[in-house]
Amino acid sequence: MSGLLSPDVSRSKSLLARSDELLVRGCQGHKRSHDMIARGYPVFTREAQGARFTDADGNEYIDYLLAYGPILLGHNDPAVQEAISAQMAQGTIYTTAWEREVEVAEKLIEAIPFAEMLGFVIGGSAATAGAVLIARSYTGKDRVIRSGYHGWHDWARPGSVGVPEQVGELTTEVPYADLNALDDAFRQHPGEYACVIMETVRGEGPPDGFLQGCVEIAHSHDALCIFDEIKVGFRVAYGGAGHRWGATPDMSTFGKACCNGYPGSFIAGRKEVLGHPNAQEAWLAATFHCDTLSLTAMATVLDEMEKRDGIAYQWEIGQRLIDGLNGVTREHEIGYRLEGPGPMPTPVSDPEDGDRVAAMLRGCLARGIYLPPSHPLFFSLAHSREDIDHTIAMVAESAEDVTRAM
Amino acid sequence: MSGLLSPDVSRSKSLLARSDELLVRGCQGHKRSHDMIARGYPVFTREAQGARFTDADGNEYIDYLLAYGPILLGHNDPAVQEAISAQMAQGTIYTTAWEREVEVAEKLIEAIPFAEMLGFVIGGSAATAGAVLIARSYTGKDRVIRSGYHGWHDWARPGSVGVPEQVGELTTEVPYADLNALDDAFRQHPGEYACVIMETVRGEGPPDGFLQGCVEIAHSHDALCIFDEIKVGFRVAYGGAGHRWGATPDMSTFGKACCNGYPGSFIAGRKEVLGHPNAQEAWLAATFHCDTLSLTAMATVLDEMEKRDGIAYQWEIGQRLIDGLNGVTREHEIGYRLEGPGPMPTPVSDPEDGDRVAAMLRGCLARGIYLPPSHPLFFSLAHSREDIDHTIAMVAESAEDVTRAM
Repeated sequence: MSGLLSPDVSRSKSLLARSDELLVRGCQGHKRSHDMIARGYPVFTREAQGARFTDADGNEYIDYLLAYGPILLGHNDPAVQEAISAQMAQGTIYTTAWEREVEVAEKLIEAIPFAEMLGFVIGGSAATAGAVLIARSYTGKDRVIRSGYHGWHDWARPGSVGVPEQVGELTTEVPYADLNALDDAFRQHPGEYACVIMETVRGEGPPDGFLQGCVEIAHSHDALCIFDEIKVGFRVAYGGAGHRWGATPDMSTFGKACCNGYPGSFIAGRKEVLGHPNAQEAWLAATFHCDTLSLTAMATVLDEMEKRDGIAYQWEIGQRLIDGLNGVTREHEIGYRLEGPGPMPTPVSDPEDGDRVAAMLRGCLARGIYLPPSHPLFFSLAHSREDIDHTIAMVAESAEDVTRAM
Repeated sequence: MSGLLSPDVSRSKSLLARSDELLVRGCQGHKRSHDMIARGYPVFTREAQGARFTDADGNEYIDYLLAYGPILLGHNDPAVQEAISAQMAQGTIYTTAWEREVEVAEKLIEAIPFAEMLGFVIGGSAATAGAVLIARSYTGKDRVIRSGYHGWHDWARPGSVGVPEQVGELTTEVPYADLNALDDAFRQHPGEYACVIMETVRGEGPPDGFLQGCVEIAHSHDALCIFDEIKVGFRVAYGGAGHRWGATPDMSTFGKACCNGYPGSFIAGRKEVLGHPNAQEAWLAATFHCDTLSLTAMATVLDEMEKRDGIAYQWEIGQRLIDGLNGVTREHEIGYRLEGPGPMPTPVSDPEDGDRVAAMLRGCLARGIYLPPSHPLFFSLAHSREDIDHTIAMVAESAEDVTRAM
């Protein structure tokens, strides 16, 4: 195995040792730094520009994780930064509501076909927790069916350390893309479910009719259907998979990519639900839900995506990478491939080929390509077609090395 | 009552009508717009500078609510904006942790005496929910005793619309400043409590020995004590009331003022708790917990507060307003006064004098002074001594009008 390239991440390593002394889990957020450094990944960033970031050791990478999804136009996008600078000069958060909230809301409702009303929050977990709170308020019922990852709050993590059993007991998990399992789950406690919340794109994405099927099953049990589009919104379509695959939920949750790195997120829904007196009474209120910078970024992202035809572009370059990369790993018989819709393919590794996959990914890192080992990949409008082709070439070099050496 | 001044908030009113069609509760956040407009308050802001904001109708006010607490140096503070602009040019959120996290954590640990480790999150509710999650993880117990306002999540709002009974049943509320009531609460389900979480400053503030008493009672029941310093931190002292009144909790939660308008917040704690394997396993992870702009703002706020002697200044101007305003309303026998520690006094109104108080506050608004009817007041370092004296003079004019007319 000698001769295989690996990036030098020694400064990342020593920063992590210091950070371990000071921060819970050694880092902010969900960076899985210990797991990543063990795989040879950098775990501290110095700066990021466009489609690239530079780590603490000075290595530059084409970034296919994009902060786990928030960056959509590119790091340090000039249009966003200009709009933010202008807004900053007028203040960042106010004692009252803000004049432009209304305009941004109108813009979003135009971009997302089923949306009639919105609730602005910050962070994806607040959007999913808020939608569930509204569903419980609207229906007067307590139980929730979920499928996928919906953030860090108690209701979404039965069985997790620190989550009381009584809380977890109210949430039932069902598998993705299985309407029978969903219907069965609703029959376990008839009439007690407020909603199902479904992460709309996983693996290969939703089979035909699956998303609308979720809505119909939920309604047949007098419950609501929430689409969790946190990762998906503004990527496969503005309104996420519901929009792309023509399904109409009662509510959808958006976050991540919609503010190009600012923490704003939102719940979109039908007026019958969000405008209902019970929903309006639900206490979905917090100081920072009124971050003017996030809304400013959101308005700019919508404008720029329109100008740059950003949804189509993500589909195009995503498919280009999927085809090219899968061709390379197939040719070299390495157990790593990309599956799923163009704008957010998921890497699938063959566990029996784990060492060679890890070596290939380290080789990619050493060649300036950051491919996540298992999290879905994301693309920004700053990723050029040349970046994609260069990536495929570097994956090929790394795969050849691995094939020769191992 | 004719001849009494009121501000013209007609454009605010018409924006609210549009906003009601689009946004849950007609606004982002917890602005209570309908309640406020009924009292003659503006409910939409155009821009904010220093100690002042301009509403949608063009009226300018000295701002004593400061976005419900986040603004500490002043709206559009030049030092913060300069630091943010520099950071923006290097990217706003990253795929990995960030080099400067470690430095900012070191700075905070130096500023807050009891803090040994930190967890960064966004929004105050995430800090309180995160601290409770850690307490449950560390102790392996489920019940929580609380006192005060700890945000919008389910655990903190038993009985609120949409919060399941099974969830609410785990949280017990106790009154403020009553150690016997706290001890009694712990005895209701012996050995089942993970923690008490106590909002440290309400009304007149903590009586002597109260805060340390909470810690001792919690420990005597094998539970943790969390100080909720979201409103208090960086105001009465960097480390909040625990710092000011010499009490040592297991964890404290900070947010609001620490980033001058950016949404960052954090949990500070003893290493025995935050560094414990169970705490490290608790899933306190989210994409935006790693907002580099919030941490950049936090570092700048600490530097500027040091340079400008910001804690002492808040105590000084706060006490100046309390003394002056209470003198005026006492003289005119109007039932509105400020109570509590200088940096965050709470208005107390006599319900029997409600009409005259409301008229006086409307008169203050018409004279460019925004005094909240019931929420604690806040001060920024941009509030000059002259602003305070001008405020007292305007309260006096308004009180005289009311005394003459009503």
